[in-house]
Amino acid sequence: MARPKPLSGFPEFLPEGRIVEQHVLGRLQRTFELHGFASIETRAVEPLDRLAKGGEIDKEIYSVRRLSAGDDAADDLGLHFDLTVPFARYVLENSGHLQFPFRRYQIQKVWRGERPQEGRYREFTQADIDIVGNGDLAAHHDVELPLVLLEAMEALHRDLGLPPVLMHVNNRKLAQGFYTALGIEDLAGVLRTVDKYDKIGPDAVRESLVTDIGLDASQAELCTRLAQIATPDASFVDQVKQLGVSGDLLDEGVGELAALVEAAGAQQPGRLVADLKIARGLDYYTGSVYETELVGFGSLGSIASGGRYDSLASDGRTNYPGVGISFGVTRTLVPLLGKGHLGASRPVPTCVLVAVESEERRGAALAVAGKLRKRGIPTEVAPKADRFGKQIRYADRRSIPYVWFTSAEAGAGGEVKDIRTGEQLPADPTRWLPDDEDLHPTVHGVWDPAG
Amino acid sequence: MARPKPLSGFPEFLPEGRIVEQHVLGRLQRTFELHGFASIETRAVEPLDRLAKGGEIDKEIYSVRRLSAGDDAADDLGLHFDLTVPFARYVLENSGHLQFPFRRYQIQKVWRGERPQEGRYREFTQADIDIVGNGDLAAHHDVELPLVLLEAMEALHRDLGLPPVLMHVNNRKLAQGFYTALGIEDLAGVLRTVDKYDKIGPDAVRESLVTDIGLDASQAELCTRLAQIATPDASFVDQVKQLGVSGDLLDEGVGELAALVEAAGAQQPGRLVADLKIARGLDYYTGSVYETELVGFGSLGSIASGGRYDSLASDGRTNYPGVGISFGVTRTLVPLLGKGHLGASRPVPTCVLVAVESEERRGAALAVAGKLRKRGIPTEVAPKADRFGKQIRYADRRSIPYVWFTSAEAGAGGEVKDIRTGEQLPADPTRWLPDDEDLHPTVHGVWDPAG
Repeated sequence: MARPKPLSGFPEFLPEGRIVEQHVLGRLQRTFELHGFASIETRAVEPLDRLAKGGEIDKEIYSVRRLSAGDDAADDLGLHFDLTVPFARYVLENSGHLQFPFRRYQIQKVWRGERPQEGRYREFTQADIDIVGNGDLAAHHDVELPLVLLEAMEALHRDLGLPPVLMHVNNRKLAQGFYTALGIEDLAGVLRTVDKYDKIGPDAVRESLVTDIGLDASQAELCTRLAQIATPDASFVDQVKQLGVSGDLLDEGVGELAALVEAAGAQQPGRLVADLKIARGLDYYTGSVYETELVGFGSLGSIASGGRYDSLASDGRTNYPGVGISFGVTRTLVPLLGKGHLGASRPVPTCVLVAVESEERRGAALAVAGKLRKRGIPTEVAPKADRFGKQIRYADRRSIPYVWFTSAEAGAGGEVKDIRTGEQLPADPTRWLPDDEDLHPTVHGVWDPAG
Repeated sequence: MARPKPLSGFPEFLPEGRIVEQHVLGRLQRTFELHGFASIETRAVEPLDRLAKGGEIDKEIYSVRRLSAGDDAADDLGLHFDLTVPFARYVLENSGHLQFPFRRYQIQKVWRGERPQEGRYREFTQADIDIVGNGDLAAHHDVELPLVLLEAMEALHRDLGLPPVLMHVNNRKLAQGFYTALGIEDLAGVLRTVDKYDKIGPDAVRESLVTDIGLDASQAELCTRLAQIATPDASFVDQVKQLGVSGDLLDEGVGELAALVEAAGAQQPGRLVADLKIARGLDYYTGSVYETELVGFGSLGSIASGGRYDSLASDGRTNYPGVGISFGVTRTLVPLLGKGHLGASRPVPTCVLVAVESEERRGAALAVAGKLRKRGIPTEVAPKADRFGKQIRYADRRSIPYVWFTSAEAGAGGEVKDIRTGEQLPADPTRWLPDDEDLHPTVHGVWDPAG
C-alpha cells in the first residue's frame, strides 16, 4: 500500500496538535460546566428532510446510505452541518425528559461539502452553548450567554496562550426598529446589504441600498450612519439618538444592547463592543447577535457567532425560544497550529521513562512504573533493554523529561535523571514527585516577541 | 413540526446518561495516559476502496457523498466502521512524524449499517488502544496491552460501579501450532469452527470438524479437548502437554500465553483466564487474542476484543506490526443505563443555585455566582425571581443540592440551604465549600441488593 495522502478539507492533528486540542476542549468544558451547562451529544445523521431546507447550505450536505442499499435506493439520511438543527430536534424529541430553561453545551464534529479553501473545512469541530426555554425565555439570558463564551475564551488566552478575542454585538430589534421607523419595508434586503459592510465599505453600502434595495437617499444615508456606530461602552445609545429616529422596537433593542455592553464592561473589560453593522446572514435571529474576532487574526472571520432566536423549535403546541453561540474549534486551531502559534511541551502524556537494564530485569522496571502510576504519574517502561544512552534518546525524542534507573538492590527505588539538566538523584517511587509543570504536557502560545 | 422519533440503531443519551458516559470516557483517558498512550482522532471518512475489502463487513459500510453531486456521481468516501483501518492509514500517512513504538488511544464514533437489534448499533463509540512498531515489536507488549485495559476496566468497576470483567485470552500460535502438529491443513476452517464453541457446544464442534472440515476422529477429538481447556493460571500448560502434541510454534504460543496469564495473576488477580477456545473470527491476528466478558452480562458478548497482528500496515518498504484492543463503550453503556444499572447523582453539573429575590437584585445574585465559580464551584443563577419555594423546586427538579440566598446587606454573602436536609446556614461566597461529593455529579452502580 503506497503512502496515503491527506484528504483536502479533512484536517487531522499529529499527537502534539491533538494535545493542544484536548487542552482547549477541556477548558471549554470546564467553563461551560461552571455555568451549569450540561453536555449532550447527538447522532451524526439527521433525516435529509430535516437538514435540507432549500437554502444555500443544501448543496453542502453530505448524504449517507448503506453501500449495499443499491443505486436506486433513496438517500434519506445526511450528516449534520451544524449543531443547532440536531439540538432543536433533540429538544423536541426529549422535551418531556428535560428541565427548562435547558442549558446545554455540545462539542462535536460537523460536515459540510464546501469547496476546500483556506479557513474552510469539510469536517470540523464546533463547541456550542445554548439556553432554550419552554414557551418563554427571559432577556437576561441574552446577556449571560456571550459572557460565558467570553469567560471561556479568556481562559484559553490566559492559560493556554491563545490570542485574546473581541466580540462584536448588535441587536436585531435595534436594526429592524430603526429601519421600520424610517418606513423601510424590505428589512431583510437592508440587513443583507449591511452585512457586506466590512467587505465593500460604507460608500458601496449606501449606493447598494439605493440601487438594489430601492431606498431613497436619506434612508440609505441614515442606515449607513447607523452601521458606522461602534463603541466599547453604552455611548452608542447617544449616537443612535442623534440620528433622530425613534420607535418602541428600536428603544427595546437599544436597551437590550446597552445592558449587554455594560455587563460585559464590568465582567470582561475590553473584550466586547457594540457594533451596529453586525447583521448575521441567518434570518432566524430576532434579538441579540454576536460575532467574535480573534485579535490579530481578523482574516479568519468570526470564530464564534450566534444570537437570540424566538423559535429554535416548535411542535405546534409549544414554542421553544433560545439563545446560542457556536465556537469554531477547528477553524481557530488549525491555522494557529499550522503557523506555529501554539505548541505542547511534549507529544506524549508520559512524564517518566523507566529504563530497562536487561530483559531479565524488566520486572523491576514494571514494578517501579506501577508505583509511579498509582500516584498519578504517567509512566512508560522502555521497550528494549538497549544501552542506557539509547534509552535516554528514546525519552529525548519524545521530550519525556525524566528517565528512571532501577536499582540492582531488591526493594530500592533507584535513581531519576532530569534529561534536560542531566541531574541524576536517588529516588523512591513511592515518594518522588516531578516538578508540577512536568507532570502533564502543557500548552503555550508561541509568539514573535518582536511582533 | 411533529415530535420526531428516535432513529433505530442511533442511541442518544439524556443529560444524566451523558454524564455517566463522560465519567467513563474520563477514566479511560486517565488510565491510558498514565501508561503513556497519546490521543489521536482521525476523520470520520476514508476512501471507499480502503474500507471495502470484499468481506462480510462491506455491506454494512455507509457511503457518503455531497447531495449536490448528483445521482450519477460515484461514491468514493465511506464512514469508518472501526478505528483500526483509519489508524493503519494514519500511521502510514504520518510515519515520518511519529516515534515508534507508537502508543495511541482513540475514542470515537464508528458507523455500521447493521440490521438494528439488541446490542447492535449503527452508530457507536469505541475506545481503542494500540501499540505499533516500525519493523518489529517485542512480545512483552502483548502482555502489557491487555493489562492496561484491565486496569481501565477495574477503575470503572471500583470508581463508577460498573460490573467487573473477565478477560479470556488465547494465542494463535498455540492453536495453529497444535493443529499443524496434528497434520491439519485447513487451519482457518478449524478456527472458524472452534469459534462457535460457546454457541453450539463441544459435541457439535467435534462433529463439525469431521463433517465440514474433514478431520479424522482423533484430530477432531484432540482439537475439541484443546478448546475445552480454560484455567485462571498457568496450569493450562500441563493440560496442553497431557494431550501429547508438540511442536515449536505450539511451544512458543504456550510460553507467550503463560507469561500473560502469570503477569495478569500478579497485577489483576481474578480478572483474566487462559481460554483455549477463543479464536476471534478476524484472520489478521497472529499471536495473542483477547475477549472480555462483562460479569453477569454474558449476553452482551465480548465488550473488549483484540490481539496481536504481525502487519497492521505496510508501505512496501516498512512493515508495522501491532497489538491492539477495542472497548465497546456504547455497547456496554446503553444496556447498563437502559436497565437502570448505572446512574448519576444529578443531570446537571450545577452544585449551587443562587436564588433571585427580585429582578432588581439579580446583580447581587450574579456577583455571588461569580465568586463561587472563581473557586471552581459550578453555579447557576435562578432564571426568574419567583417566590423562593418555586426557586427551590427549580433546584430540586435538577437535584442541585444547594440554594444560596443573597443578603440584602451590601457585601454580606447570605445564607446557603442544603435542600436535602433543609439546613440553612450563613455563608461567605469567598470561603464556603460544598461537601466533596457534592461538588460535581457522581456516578454509581445501581444493583439489586438481593441479586
